[in-house]
Amino acid sequence: MIYLDNAATTLIKPDSVIEAVVSAMKTQGNASRGAHGATLTASRTVYDARVKIAKFFNFDKPSNVVFTCNSTEALNIVISGLINDGDHVVSTDTEHNSVLRPLYHLRDTKNIDLQFVKANEKGILCISDFEKIISKKTKVVVVNHISNLTGNVNDIKKISDIAHDAGAVLIVDGSQSAGTMNVDVKALGIDVYCFTGHKGLFGPQGTGGLLVRDGIEIEPFKRGGSGVQTYNEDQPKEYPTRLEAGTLNSHGIAGLSAAIDFISEVGVINIHKKEVELTKYFYDAVMKIDGVKVYGDFSDFDNHAAIVSLNVKDYDSGEVADALSNDYGIATRSGAHCVPRLHIALGTKNQGAVRFSFSYFTTYEELDVAIGALKEIAS
Amino acid sequence: MIYLDNAATTLIKPDSVIEAVVSAMKTQGNASRGAHGATLTASRTVYDARVKIAKFFNFDKPSNVVFTCNSTEALNIVISGLINDGDHVVSTDTEHNSVLRPLYHLRDTKNIDLQFVKANEKGILCISDFEKIISKKTKVVVVNHISNLTGNVNDIKKISDIAHDAGAVLIVDGSQSAGTMNVDVKALGIDVYCFTGHKGLFGPQGTGGLLVRDGIEIEPFKRGGSGVQTYNEDQPKEYPTRLEAGTLNSHGIAGLSAAIDFISEVGVINIHKKEVELTKYFYDAVMKIDGVKVYGDFSDFDNHAAIVSLNVKDYDSGEVADALSNDYGIATRSGAHCVPRLHIALGTKNQGAVRFSFSYFTTYEELDVAIGALKEIAS
Repeated sequence: MIYLDNAATTLIKPDSVIEAVVSAMKTQGNASRGAHGATLTASRTVYDARVKIAKFFNFDKPSNVVFTCNSTEALNIVISGLINDGDHVVSTDTEHNSVLRPLYHLRDTKNIDLQFVKANEKGILCISDFEKIISKKTKVVVVNHISNLTGNVNDIKKISDIAHDAGAVLIVDGSQSAGTMNVDVKALGIDVYCFTGHKGLFGPQGTGGLLVRDGIEIEPFKRGGSGVQTYNEDQPKEYPTRLEAGTLNSHGIAGLSAAIDFISEVGVINIHKKEVELTKYFYDAVMKIDGVKVYGDFSDFDNHAAIVSLNVKDYDSGEVADALSNDYGIATRSGAHCVPRLHIALGTKNQGAVRFSFSYFTTYEELDVAIGALKEIAS
Repeated sequence: MIYLDNAATTLIKPDSVIEAVVSAMKTQGNASRGAHGATLTASRTVYDARVKIAKFFNFDKPSNVVFTCNSTEALNIVISGLINDGDHVVSTDTEHNSVLRPLYHLRDTKNIDLQFVKANEKGILCISDFEKIISKKTKVVVVNHISNLTGNVNDIKKISDIAHDAGAVLIVDGSQSAGTMNVDVKALGIDVYCFTGHKGLFGPQGTGGLLVRDGIEIEPFKRGGSGVQTYNEDQPKEYPTRLEAGTLNSHGIAGLSAAIDFISEVGVINIHKKEVELTKYFYDAVMKIDGVKVYGDFSDFDNHAAIVSLNVKDYDSGEVADALSNDYGIATRSGAHCVPRLHIALGTKNQGAVRFSFSYFTTYEELDVAIGALKEIAS
């Protein structure tokens, strides 16, 4: 199988990630529960992972690295825990349902004033639209770093400046950026960064988290055992325990920690560079195929993720993906990709789109097979 | 190390569980996202796990087996998703903070009328107290199957009868019962059973779930990508998607599935039988040690979990556990075990208790070392 669905989950994980999970499953007790060898091994693994992740994203407070089971949970935590009745909230047409559905729920139950920055037909968000919509009444801005459909990278620094000038908090959905490009949360001015472990970071499924800038107070989402303050009727106020009830997935976190090591050794900039080259190679080739229409903004490959979404003529995207899978052994993703507003902006609500997404482990030979397959399907 | 902290997390996992996780990490895409080989492999693993888990607990609807990252999440989902403003809710003194803290939060924010069945000095809940407190106004009863501190098993069938006679829904915290005794949710009359994967079930951390009886409508807890109904602004209404937003931990679920196979092959009744024998052996020996006080109801070993919590004289439980760990290499858990009300009932709020908890893989040789260590500490 040629796996070109890395924006959904990376299939090839570094061996060291798998080895770390195996080792953890053989040696780690319950993190932060007790003081014997096995629990301390787990606690150390988790703490080391917080430190590594903080360093990786240039975030200065490891104790504010909160672990979750995926980025959807991280986004639910911060959206439900920061936004209050009647707040003005700004988001965008390019968001995933992991942002949209929690926001719609708050609109319907807490009467929040929800406004969206519109995407154009290339899925581009105009910075001037953020300036128009964000105002002193804005409490929170939620925006993805990279679109999971077009691969467009949003200008987080500029959005952050606008949000902060208005006194708003900026939440960034980093599901597609963590591990695939250099993310410096301090330089970008991100207040809360949500990430998942199993995509660009090459970690196991069941891992993810959020980085919460010091001073940002997020209400607990889950409540339960914390291993400390048993007689406190509330969840402890201190991060990370405040947002981490119950037994942590220290087995998965061990894998994520090894994955961060792998990326740090290779260099996230080198990973991004290779992915840019793969993307440019694929894009240039498929743009030459009659009947192929590509979505997104490819004016600057250095500032684009390893995602190319396209359609062939007026063929249903599901049928094209099925043909790629059944006839060529190529794994892609079709349909709506959980981004309803963006498909409407792109004009692809009915057709969906076929998404090709690459990773550091993707080869040019694989791309050639995919390009050849698209040529045959289009002809 | 002699690991006697299995009620926190089982440390020895069957080899097949680790192998299943490794295989999953090498072959599984994102479950329920797309239709290519890798995603179908993940989807099949997840579906098979639902079927196996349903069968294991004699639950008849695999699609109502919902996966979570642990039992704390399962309990938060059902408690926050079933209980409404002003509801009368009955719980008990023996609950874990994973039940208590979500309930206290609803008491403080939704003005629920929360009443507790009291535990006596052995941690026993009187069935007649349930009869007194549960009434036609009761909406929900939440009770643990097995206490994580005393190992006492609650008579779920009788509690269920009382709850159902009053028209209430019964939620059972099965954190300590899943995998350690035969749990037949139909025979026991459980409406919602919450379990974790990493304790008695021998699965990986990061797994767990809830079984939701048909007809029980739980509000979504998290909202986000579901791989279906992209244009629906709400989380889909159908189980399990209704309660499962974002990428599932299909790597962990593969391990949990293998763990269920292991337990089914050995026979959960045989596992329970061995644990009963280990518990009786340990209990009988430590009861003979001057200065050791054991907590809980050991009148019927067949109806008791493999948990023995005790104190030595008036020694701080943390110091005893540290001595066991440092001087004898024995891993136990001390302190308050996230059960504040139960410690008050037992009179151990200040001292805490040292918990020894066994698994199918615990040996008599290990128990002998622990018994010898307790003798030395007590003398």
